[in-house]
Amino acid sequence: MSKRKPQILKGFRDYLPQDMLLRQQVISTFRTVFERHGYEPLDTPALEYLEILTGKAGENEKLMYHFLDQGNREIGLRYDLTVPLSRFVAMHQNDVVMPFKRYHIAPVWRAEKPQRGRFREFWQCDADIVGAASMQADAESISVLVDALHGVNLGRAVVHINHRKLLEALAVLAGVPAGSAPVVYRAIDKLAKIGPDGVKAELMKQEVSETSANRIIELVTTQGTTETLIDAAETQLAGIPGGPEAVTELRDLFQFIEDLGVPRNAYTLDLSLARGIDYYTGPVYEAIVEEPKVGSVAGAGRYDGLIGMFTGRDIPATGMSLGMERIIEVIREFDLLPVNQSVAEIFVACSAETLADASHITRILRTHGINADLSLLTHRSLGEQLRYADRRQIRFAVIAGSAEVDQGTIAIKNLRTGEQHAFQASLLVEEVRRLIQA
Amino acid sequence: MSKRKPQILKGFRDYLPQDMLLRQQVISTFRTVFERHGYEPLDTPALEYLEILTGKAGENEKLMYHFLDQGNREIGLRYDLTVPLSRFVAMHQNDVVMPFKRYHIAPVWRAEKPQRGRFREFWQCDADIVGAASMQADAESISVLVDALHGVNLGRAVVHINHRKLLEALAVLAGVPAGSAPVVYRAIDKLAKIGPDGVKAELMKQEVSETSANRIIELVTTQGTTETLIDAAETQLAGIPGGPEAVTELRDLFQFIEDLGVPRNAYTLDLSLARGIDYYTGPVYEAIVEEPKVGSVAGAGRYDGLIGMFTGRDIPATGMSLGMERIIEVIREFDLLPVNQSVAEIFVACSAETLADASHITRILRTHGINADLSLLTHRSLGEQLRYADRRQIRFAVIAGSAEVDQGTIAIKNLRTGEQHAFQASLLVEEVRRLIQA
Repeated sequence: MSKRKPQILKGFRDYLPQDMLLRQQVISTFRTVFERHGYEPLDTPALEYLEILTGKAGENEKLMYHFLDQGNREIGLRYDLTVPLSRFVAMHQNDVVMPFKRYHIAPVWRAEKPQRGRFREFWQCDADIVGAASMQADAESISVLVDALHGVNLGRAVVHINHRKLLEALAVLAGVPAGSAPVVYRAIDKLAKIGPDGVKAELMKQEVSETSANRIIELVTTQGTTETLIDAAETQLAGIPGGPEAVTELRDLFQFIEDLGVPRNAYTLDLSLARGIDYYTGPVYEAIVEEPKVGSVAGAGRYDGLIGMFTGRDIPATGMSLGMERIIEVIREFDLLPVNQSVAEIFVACSAETLADASHITRILRTHGINADLSLLTHRSLGEQLRYADRRQIRFAVIAGSAEVDQGTIAIKNLRTGEQHAFQASLLVEEVRRLIQA
Repeated sequence: MSKRKPQILKGFRDYLPQDMLLRQQVISTFRTVFERHGYEPLDTPALEYLEILTGKAGENEKLMYHFLDQGNREIGLRYDLTVPLSRFVAMHQNDVVMPFKRYHIAPVWRAEKPQRGRFREFWQCDADIVGAASMQADAESISVLVDALHGVNLGRAVVHINHRKLLEALAVLAGVPAGSAPVVYRAIDKLAKIGPDGVKAELMKQEVSETSANRIIELVTTQGTTETLIDAAETQLAGIPGGPEAVTELRDLFQFIEDLGVPRNAYTLDLSLARGIDYYTGPVYEAIVEEPKVGSVAGAGRYDGLIGMFTGRDIPATGMSLGMERIIEVIREFDLLPVNQSVAEIFVACSAETLADASHITRILRTHGINADLSLLTHRSLGEQLRYADRRQIRFAVIAGSAEVDQGTIAIKNLRTGEQHAFQASLLVEEVRRLIQA
């Protein structure tokens, strides 16, 4: 027989059943949390016009999978879920009711250099609110984020919150030209890593005066309650464009978060947070797990300018994105969730002679909502059948041997412990339920 | 503001929330049925080496989305789920335990001419068993198929069953050269449409002798029980290569299906079934809904030769594929499943003054597992807020007005009927549950 070499593209993965069981559990938890918050599900095509995909970040084009289709159209694979959302909203302004709350859990593709933990195909998991300018929408984002992380036992994550306009005001305070603002952001963002002196040195290297550098350091290192921090920002940034606006919005935001009952230890105002704020226009946030040392697992913010790319008029939007691949990695690494290794809760072993009885038993179990796998190895010995079930990590086996069938009894074996016991056939469902739920 | 034209590729669709809610419900039902039968979930990449994708059917290459990636590799988008399964099994022979039962629900892409009900991106939903030659595996396929269709209220579907080798034996009986066998299959397959005389005429047009044509017609029009039909086939095909084998396998298959308790009216032996049998090697089946006149909604069969393409040795395999897109279309057309129009079960309306209370109410509802949407329109009138909720097709609204808050009561309005009643705040969860479950 001619044979083709079976191979998979670098940077791509097969998800084996054990991987899938964990992934499905995580996705299902996230979906439940999103829907609990009233976010509606949405899906968009994997393929889009390239012109649409490059909307957000022209420089990413080289990381996009794109090509000419059979009709000579330039098309590409979805690079993220935010640009498709923007395109969707612009096309369906009459179908969707604003504010529009949607979640989207789907794969995206990036032609990046594959490396440990970075893939060319990976899933994103976003929840956004389009058409609401109120900080209430941002508070919802943070509530949904915290609940989602709690749902997968990442309860120790802390959402760090800052505001793009506050950072812009700091750049003005630093006296650098507008184009150099990102340099200031990058310096400030290193606070936890290099300390205040390090940040000050970095700022001064960028021609920030010592006085300005000191004022910036003073503000971003302020200790105390959220209120103290916001008051300090109000004083320091009074009169600087964007400053007062950021202060007002942060005050509203923290009030709304508190009203929603988000646990107090799950979020914090962090005036030094400045990562990946490229297209954000308002609050930005990032969920960080310090213990264990996991780092960022989710984030996002408000992006009032993006949807307008397709509509021609600004539409406010805010949302959050769970780092699904990273979260799954962390759950597995730290064993955060109990995950089944097989969908089958019980295996039904039998011989060719007892197959009809075994089939009947299987049907009864399935009818009662129990995931039952009927042996396809009736030509093999009972021992071999049980080894098969054990290798599939099925925990229990019903043994429909002829002795049992003749006596009207059923034997169940625990494949982990080897324990076995027999009971009246009429108690089948009850006994199996008791065992698998134990 | 500069504006890009928002557009979607022809043959591609956005799934709006109402579409998604139905799709998710159907997928969830299918998953439950597959897992109940012990099939494990699997996923493979959307992109594969083109050489892998063209494995099954070289002539389909022009219908594949394929291109050179950044590393100059010829790659393409998955065209179906069977070829990736074959590639997966060949690569993971040491990781998976055979027999391997897997299901896969995922999109595939085909550069076909878009037309009504046919898309370039659509979902497939397959469940297969690899590594089991026994007809038991085929019986499982039919059991899972019937249960899946019942699960989405397509209970009147009938699975028509035939056998590739029986059809081959009929072609031998017809006396046509092996290469012309498909012509015989096509003629036979038209039985229901053009009747026995029509089939006879078609066969004789293909140079089949009248005697042979009569024998074929006699067999495929045999009336009676499954046993009668199989006995007739046994007599007619005795001594013809493949005939006795087909007869034995069909006898086993029907016995196993019966043992598994599949309802008798859900399947039938149909010796004229010959559609799309290209790479099948054993039993073939197709689920057909006659009333309403829906036609084929699922099918498949045994394909013992396909996996070997990558492994270099034959590995038996059998499975079934649910026509998910067609099924969803039918469910919608005939209103077969009650589907929510919004994930939000209740809307919480309030003014800016009562927002804190409304937030608290929302949190309580969410904590108790109720999908609650908190108004983001607190700057609008109550009437406008309720119109928003109604347009989103949310059925109930809690009204957290200042009068209610002051009195310690809560009012709930049914947005369909306009009915409203107030109750003690302490009864909130109980009352809301009662309403949404009614």
